Amino acid sequence: MTQLELQGKNAKKAALRLMTAGTNEKNRALLMIADALEKNAGRILAANEDDLAAARESGMSEAMQDRLRLTEERIRGIADGVRSVAALPDPIGRAESVTRPNGLIITKRTVPLGVIAIIYEARPNVTADAAALCLKSGNAVILRGGKEAFRSNTEIVSLMRDAVETAGLPADAVNIVADTSRESARELMGLAEYVDLLIPRGGAGLIRSVVENARVPVIETGVGNCHVYVEKSADLAMAAEILYNAKCSRPSVCNAAESLLVDREIAETFLPMAKARLDEKQVELRGCEETRRILGPTVVPASEEDYFTEYDDYILSIKVVSGPDEAIEHINVHGTGHSEAIITNDYALSQRFLNEIDAAAVYVNASTRFTDGGEFGLGAEIGISTQKMHARGPMGLEHLTSYKYTIFGNGQVRG
Amino acid sequence: MTQLELQGKNAKKAALRLMTAGTNEKNRALLMIADALEKNAGRILAANEDDLAAARESGMSEAMQDRLRLTEERIRGIADGVRSVAALPDPIGRAESVTRPNGLIITKRTVPLGVIAIIYEARPNVTADAAALCLKSGNAVILRGGKEAFRSNTEIVSLMRDAVETAGLPADAVNIVADTSRESARELMGLAEYVDLLIPRGGAGLIRSVVENARVPVIETGVGNCHVYVEKSADLAMAAEILYNAKCSRPSVCNAAESLLVDREIAETFLPMAKARLDEKQVELRGCEETRRILGPTVVPASEEDYFTEYDDYILSIKVVSGPDEAIEHINVHGTGHSEAIITNDYALSQRFLNEIDAAAVYVNASTRFTDGGEFGLGAEIGISTQKMHARGPMGLEHLTSYKYTIFGNGQVRG
Repeated sequence: MTQLELQGKNAKKAALRLMTAGTNEKNRALLMIADALEKNAGRILAANEDDLAAARESGMSEAMQDRLRLTEERIRGIADGVRSVAALPDPIGRAESVTRPNGLIITKRTVPLGVIAIIYEARPNVTADAAALCLKSGNAVILRGGKEAFRSNTEIVSLMRDAVETAGLPADAVNIVADTSRESARELMGLAEYVDLLIPRGGAGLIRSVVENARVPVIETGVGNCHVYVEKSADLAMAAEILYNAKCSRPSVCNAAESLLVDREIAETFLPMAKARLDEKQVELRGCEETRRILGPTVVPASEEDYFTEYDDYILSIKVVSGPDEAIEHINVHGTGHSEAIITNDYALSQRFLNEIDAAAVYVNASTRFTDGGEFGLGAEIGISTQKMHARGPMGLEHLTSYKYTIFGNGQVRG
Repeated sequence: MTQLELQGKNAKKAALRLMTAGTNEKNRALLMIADALEKNAGRILAANEDDLAAARESGMSEAMQDRLRLTEERIRGIADGVRSVAALPDPIGRAESVTRPNGLIITKRTVPLGVIAIIYEARPNVTADAAALCLKSGNAVILRGGKEAFRSNTEIVSLMRDAVETAGLPADAVNIVADTSRESARELMGLAEYVDLLIPRGGAGLIRSVVENARVPVIETGVGNCHVYVEKSADLAMAAEILYNAKCSRPSVCNAAESLLVDREIAETFLPMAKARLDEKQVELRGCEETRRILGPTVVPASEEDYFTEYDDYILSIKVVSGPDEAIEHINVHGTGHSEAIITNDYALSQRFLNEIDAAAVYVNASTRFTDGGEFGLGAEIGISTQKMHARGPMGLEHLTSYKYTIFGNGQVRG
């Protein structure tokens, strides 16, 4: 039995206990975690300092170092995040019943999934956030973070395990994979006996690897090749503002726009307006031939690959289209089913776009940047699903549950 | 491009059209299908006669031939089944909205999944049932039935395609795989570009192959190693009746009981009662040592493998247990998460069993045979899921849907 298999087995055992943990019990553990993280901030900061030293040595960029860096204040923020999860309603045990003609009382009630594995590369705050959401929903969690944050993550998990145990729940509710190699990710994808759900949070490469290799159930998250389509009836000033916001307000996230489609009829007017606004952030433009004819040779020629690319950077691909037919088809072919927007004043067309675009979130006259659990009013989120099964779009606590049927009889047999 | 890839591509295109089909449109197609099946019963019967001739030649058992056989009356039954699907409420387009503080109106609404593939080995009536459920829920379907029913299935699908087209929807909404080899099943499992959901309906071997090989999202169905646990406080006469019903009313189906657990304290009394009842159907008993000591050497010694086996036949494994701890652990280890029953008069224990058994349906004092869409009041079912993601237990129309968020704005950008 490998170390990971042993962790899986222990997590599964902890999950059986969590399955019957009450709301008060889980909330007490969460509040103790929050206190422990604050009280032991020194230990976390020391581990984080080691991570940062290794990062500097490896030549990590300043921006990436900043994402990795923890401070007293950031740790307070993490602890407050855990407390806010404790304050959310418990998604477990929600029930509805029917009494059947034969007297059977059938109750459908929400239950935890069991063991949730998360592969992620992001900042150490994800460690506590994700574990808190899993614990609140009665699931054990196996965390496999990136190697850059390994020391910080390990310290955070160690404090969480102690707090969970002190609260009377099994420490194995929260687990961290001790090996941050590709092999450990691969092994986790195959741990079908112990893992009930795998959530990969990362780039297109990780997602592809998971689709190829996973034998455990998966929810794909976070790949967003999002479009803004400016239709000929649009309010062009509004379109330029929405495009600027969708592209530039935070280019590194999955709900940022990567591609602009614009109707031929208004391209001569709109493209210069858009460029003027995007130039403020020196956005690199990669366009079709018509775009280059209108905006000039500073626009890089766009390849077909560009239209499939999520840049996560100050880069935007542009395509002039003949109208809605071409735009909708282009988006359904090149998009990743995340967030897509049309800017229009045409009522019938707005309805058509909402109906025909196959994505988790489809917008009329608003920025794609709103696709987010908080912005949608769902509370904390564990990721944004781009698949259709089980959960689509922002995933909150309710998406970390399954359900079971319990049936009360008094001797019924089937005729 | 292989033939299956081409079918997948065409099905995907049809799915885009079905996504926006209205309820009336879909119902009209379903009613035309039902009429076409009845009106062309002769063609279906001729194809079925060819299947039966081949079956006789290959030495298929009489019981299996009967499952394969269609008659005028059975075809009327199939057509009525399609009409009853038309009469069910449309699961698509159900919506709930919130208006956010920034004025965005966010509507979550149900949408079809897209293309659903079904691998099955059962009777030809599954072909029409499954296609009707997919059509009603706005999904295109790719059917890959068993080779024994291939001619019957092909004729049914051909009639359905014509009817769908006459109703103004694309014929490619309903597709049958022309090749019934293992390779075609394998290829279907890998068709991630076109298949949004694969539902395997069949034995443990098929399910295992799907878990090993599928790159498309899957819902596992139909593997049921179900237990009846007779606890010491049980009404033993009721227990014997429930056990008899769970084992013998239809042994070939997934919600039939395969294993009996009985408390040591009552084993001497209950086992002979159970045996007397099961002897009426000559049920083969395979028991632990204590069972054999009580019931005598006609009981076959049970191996550990027996306790993992879904017999789908008049065979029952038996184990004497020390009490609820051992029973619950045995079930959670050996069960398949389908349907599990306790027979008891102990209130606290009944609650504990419902909480701690990890299965789709958990019964107190009733037969496991009730796990079924119709018996649960869900309407027609496409299978019984034994997994926790997306759908668990009987799967009806609502489980063939996903959802999307549509967002109406008037220029909102994110701060």
